Amino acid sequence: MEKLTIAIDAMGGDLGPAAVVEGAVMAKKAFPFLEPVLFGHEETIRETAAFTPDLQVIHAATIIEPSESPTLAFRKKKDSSIVMGLKYVKEGNASGFVSSGSTGALLTGATILLGRKQGIERPALGTVLPTQTGYVLLMDCGANMDCKPSYLAQFGEIGAEYMQKVMDIKNPRVGLINVGTEEEKGNVTTKEAFSLLKASSLNFVGNIEGREILSGNIDVAVCDGFTGNVLLKFTEGFAKSMMSMIKEELMSSPVSKVGALLAKGAFKNLKKRFDYREVGGAPFLGLNHLVIKAHGSSDALAIKNAIRQCVIYSQKGNENGI
Amino acid sequence: MEKLTIAIDAMGGDLGPAAVVEGAVMAKKAFPFLEPVLFGHEETIRETAAFTPDLQVIHAATIIEPSESPTLAFRKKKDSSIVMGLKYVKEGNASGFVSSGSTGALLTGATILLGRKQGIERPALGTVLPTQTGYVLLMDCGANMDCKPSYLAQFGEIGAEYMQKVMDIKNPRVGLINVGTEEEKGNVTTKEAFSLLKASSLNFVGNIEGREILSGNIDVAVCDGFTGNVLLKFTEGFAKSMMSMIKEELMSSPVSKVGALLAKGAFKNLKKRFDYREVGGAPFLGLNHLVIKAHGSSDALAIKNAIRQCVIYSQKGNENGI
Repeated sequence: MEKLTIAIDAMGGDLGPAAVVEGAVMAKKAFPFLEPVLFGHEETIRETAAFTPDLQVIHAATIIEPSESPTLAFRKKKDSSIVMGLKYVKEGNASGFVSSGSTGALLTGATILLGRKQGIERPALGTVLPTQTGYVLLMDCGANMDCKPSYLAQFGEIGAEYMQKVMDIKNPRVGLINVGTEEEKGNVTTKEAFSLLKASSLNFVGNIEGREILSGNIDVAVCDGFTGNVLLKFTEGFAKSMMSMIKEELMSSPVSKVGALLAKGAFKNLKKRFDYREVGGAPFLGLNHLVIKAHGSSDALAIKNAIRQCVIYSQKGNENGI
Repeated sequence: MEKLTIAIDAMGGDLGPAAVVEGAVMAKKAFPFLEPVLFGHEETIRETAAFTPDLQVIHAATIIEPSESPTLAFRKKKDSSIVMGLKYVKEGNASGFVSSGSTGALLTGATILLGRKQGIERPALGTVLPTQTGYVLLMDCGANMDCKPSYLAQFGEIGAEYMQKVMDIKNPRVGLINVGTEEEKGNVTTKEAFSLLKASSLNFVGNIEGREILSGNIDVAVCDGFTGNVLLKFTEGFAKSMMSMIKEELMSSPVSKVGALLAKGAFKNLKKRFDYREVGGAPFLGLNHLVIKAHGSSDALAIKNAIRQCVIYSQKGNENGI
């Protein structure tokens, strides 16, 4: 099998290079044809416990902090792990890029450096959420605040391509998030986006209401970046709030306390279902190369799965001659 | 104490007039000064088990079905329980209106008949959601799809008034739902709405992200009707999906099954927290009178609490000379 190179930002995560290096080693074991190239402080990377001599390292002297202005940081810090990694991909040395660093800098940098896919006006950030039966890709999750109808239709297109390639879903079902299922429902933007999606070659199943997003009946749920970002963060808050309410109720009587103890394994499994590490990271789609934004607190498993997303996407791309 | 008259649609709910009449009787017991006036098919209403002779009934020959076009139905069915009840309020015979009928017809009818509060461009539908420490009013939940910044600022105003009056919260904390806490974040509309809210006399706490909505740190969460409706229905779907995942995991082993049995009471309490019946209905705010949209499947308790919302709101309105 041909070698496949993926560029990896070793510096961005909260857990530092150790977790990223370990994740890269895990990914290399899973995909022997993979060549991970790590960007970051070379000495620090080489000193991590998991480091193996067959890993490539390219020294990047600086890091873009999440607190920095993305555009400014991207222009000034040419020697940062994000900018150097993205340039490496741009120059054709790697197929994709994984970073758990500043989301803003990553999106800005990737959009400027990697170039948009033909026919795509705006790249978008997706998030894979667990449903009762599998996964749904919610997008845009925050890259585009004010969207034209054509952007939404294109999110459907690049989202479906991703779910087909990485999640192996044939003919992904694309739904447009809306306030009702009828064609005439919604705001000015969704009404026109509906027509565009209906006229497209996608497997468009129509408008979907909020309650349908996690039903398992949809593979790609399309919305503007404002709605998607609010929804995504609401999910976090709601899950946390529900879990703490459950805990509070379970601890409120001795009998239910015993019950909670016996049901501990079940709750652990539940938590695993919501574990972002199983998926990897959020794909930034619509560019000429795949960029994965890994969670800031990604551990080795999460990084491994983020790299895995890039590998599978790139492989399928080659197979299909894309 | 002076009498307080509330008009009630006896026909709209899924459970028929029996539940509504029982709810009205319960409300009358709780508030002896209350005069409920029931609108609907007189004979049917008088034949319900809970009916007491001191309840007023005004015969309305027809019902607006949820499947009908709101505007058309409102124009044509002058003898429907919704139109007759709203007219009764308009003519000054009652302080508020409660209905579990067609949301569209209720919003359209109320907007046309009751008139907007001074300074309010668009009335909005609120929903009271449980948080870890109390309640938050989410609005707009679907009355206004495309919002001007000024609408959002006004939603904050009428929402704060409601939480102060009905939920007895002093100086309610108003938050603007957004994708980040910084002032410059968001879409074109929220950016301008931020400035308006900041300049208002409200207790505006700034932008809030999705995860903050249910945190208990906010009393009124402001957004456009598209975002609010998607969020609200997403809550439903997510809670259902989480509960079914919990059930599935609990049933997956004999030990956790026993645990689930012992924790049954705790789960029952949890369900109660999410029980919309405890709150009553969704307030339609910004009009000269309060209109409560009760859930379609409202039982007697839900109707009683919907009437209770109207009673308290009207009482506080009188106290403050509003």
